[in-house]
Amino acid sequence: MPVAQDHYASRVEEKPEIRRRMDPVIYDDPARPNGPLSADELRRYERKGYLFFEKLFKEREVAALLKELERLKTTPDRRERPEYITEPGSGAVRSIFRIHRESSLFGRLMRDPRVLNVARQLLGSEVYIHQSRVNFKPGFVGKEFYWHSDFETWHVEDGMPRMRAVSCSVTLTPNTLFNGPLMIIPGSHTAYITCVGTTPEDHYKQSLKKQEYGVPDAESLSRITEAGGIEAPVGPAGSAVFFDCNAMHGSNGNITPLPRTNAFFVYNSVENRLGDPAGGIRPRPEFIATREGFEQLSPAPFRAD
Amino acid sequence: MPVAQDHYASRVEEKPEIRRRMDPVIYDDPARPNGPLSADELRRYERKGYLFFEKLFKEREVAALLKELERLKTTPDRRERPEYITEPGSGAVRSIFRIHRESSLFGRLMRDPRVLNVARQLLGSEVYIHQSRVNFKPGFVGKEFYWHSDFETWHVEDGMPRMRAVSCSVTLTPNTLFNGPLMIIPGSHTAYITCVGTTPEDHYKQSLKKQEYGVPDAESLSRITEAGGIEAPVGPAGSAVFFDCNAMHGSNGNITPLPRTNAFFVYNSVENRLGDPAGGIRPRPEFIATREGFEQLSPAPFRAD
Repeated sequence: MPVAQDHYASRVEEKPEIRRRMDPVIYDDPARPNGPLSADELRRYERKGYLFFEKLFKEREVAALLKELERLKTTPDRRERPEYITEPGSGAVRSIFRIHRESSLFGRLMRDPRVLNVARQLLGSEVYIHQSRVNFKPGFVGKEFYWHSDFETWHVEDGMPRMRAVSCSVTLTPNTLFNGPLMIIPGSHTAYITCVGTTPEDHYKQSLKKQEYGVPDAESLSRITEAGGIEAPVGPAGSAVFFDCNAMHGSNGNITPLPRTNAFFVYNSVENRLGDPAGGIRPRPEFIATREGFEQLSPAPFRAD
Repeated sequence: MPVAQDHYASRVEEKPEIRRRMDPVIYDDPARPNGPLSADELRRYERKGYLFFEKLFKEREVAALLKELERLKTTPDRRERPEYITEPGSGAVRSIFRIHRESSLFGRLMRDPRVLNVARQLLGSEVYIHQSRVNFKPGFVGKEFYWHSDFETWHVEDGMPRMRAVSCSVTLTPNTLFNGPLMIIPGSHTAYITCVGTTPEDHYKQSLKKQEYGVPDAESLSRITEAGGIEAPVGPAGSAVFFDCNAMHGSNGNITPLPRTNAFFVYNSVENRLGDPAGGIRPRPEFIATREGFEQLSPAPFRAD
């Protein structure tokens, strides 16, 4: 459904702007919920922009996933691949992208009905994986992720047309208030903050380590924080948070001894597949934004044996 | 009370060590409390290493102090003085040292019975100011302070003989769980963790911006955190936390829009005045560690008019 003018254009004007969201937040009908979420949960997601479920996965499921990550991190030569993003300074692995292809175990995790059917219900359609990754925030030295709306980047750099995607973050270690948990500004998903500055070519090579473009301005952030406050869904390993593609979120650093490791799946509606990025910039590589690798997902229970 | 061997020697051995604390934590008798703190509060401080009081100061008192800081920060040439420490990178003022001399208003704050008499009671003697400062952790860009025991530095770099000092931090903005609040490891004050590495000459010029020496090792930190957990006393502006000189503490960065500004007074017992620093290193300057400027403090009510 192309629009005559790009309502979500960003990084083109000299001043930032807070614009109205043009798309629904939930694509299911709370009067007749069609999936695992109740009417109340749907309405809460619509209002706040996120939902949190404690211990959606069992301890042994989490243990198997952590063991798999240890294997990936210690296999020789793997960390030279573009999917492996390292911390500036320490060189520690910060993220592994396209984790659902790097590991069949994570590939099964994203198909598990406990997460996939929530995404299908929220988006009111079949879905595919736009992006997946694991984020490591190691103890003592973990760095912050500054505030951002994922959709701003996906729209500008990947050509995602509309707001019809949901992120699911599965916690693989306890997320506490002290080890740099995901912070969300409730209600922020109902507005769209345009950013300032032109996107440089091959921006992703830097932006995955340190953001400089697609960064919302301080004044807009202050305004939406005054309106909505800040919340941090925290809980034991195996919990999951679902959040709207346009929810403003970020996280502080982590000097505690406790590492914070989360798997992250972005489900996009099959009716919202990528077009060309704005301004004629080159599309980002497949491991960051799925194009050719498109695959509609069918639910299949994840089992850790 | 000099000891034959320096039990608190640090930065001399090749491996870190967790040693026993040789000094009392409270110098008052909980059976007959002699000051504003109750027996329960004394015992809690003894066990946890800190006490927190919500809203010890009134809104208009806090407003006057904040206005004073604005004056100090914007007076031309002031920020060129050694007392003014700037952030690496942004150049924003991170701390103002010897704030009780930079500003008579803060000089009165530290003499107020609400704080001074707590220090006198905990230390069981008259007291003087070993160090004072204001720490600014600005919104969006505030950086972390890594874990440390103040006493380790004061003993090694300033020649403070024994553990008989207490820090008081008065919050001048709300301290929330999200804007990089002080984090303390309860019970950590009962052990002494020696650090590794020799102190370079004039170390303070760097250490006030970024710590490299006097940094506890990861393994010891993990052990004491497993034992004590992590707590963060948070509350509205005008609250105060008192914590033992040897309590392990630190704080994460601050990407929220909310600045975190705290005034910080270190009360030392007059019976615990500084000697020579270990290893023949040159004493740090007066604005960081009081020697000549020694002055026993008498209570006088702070009034903001």
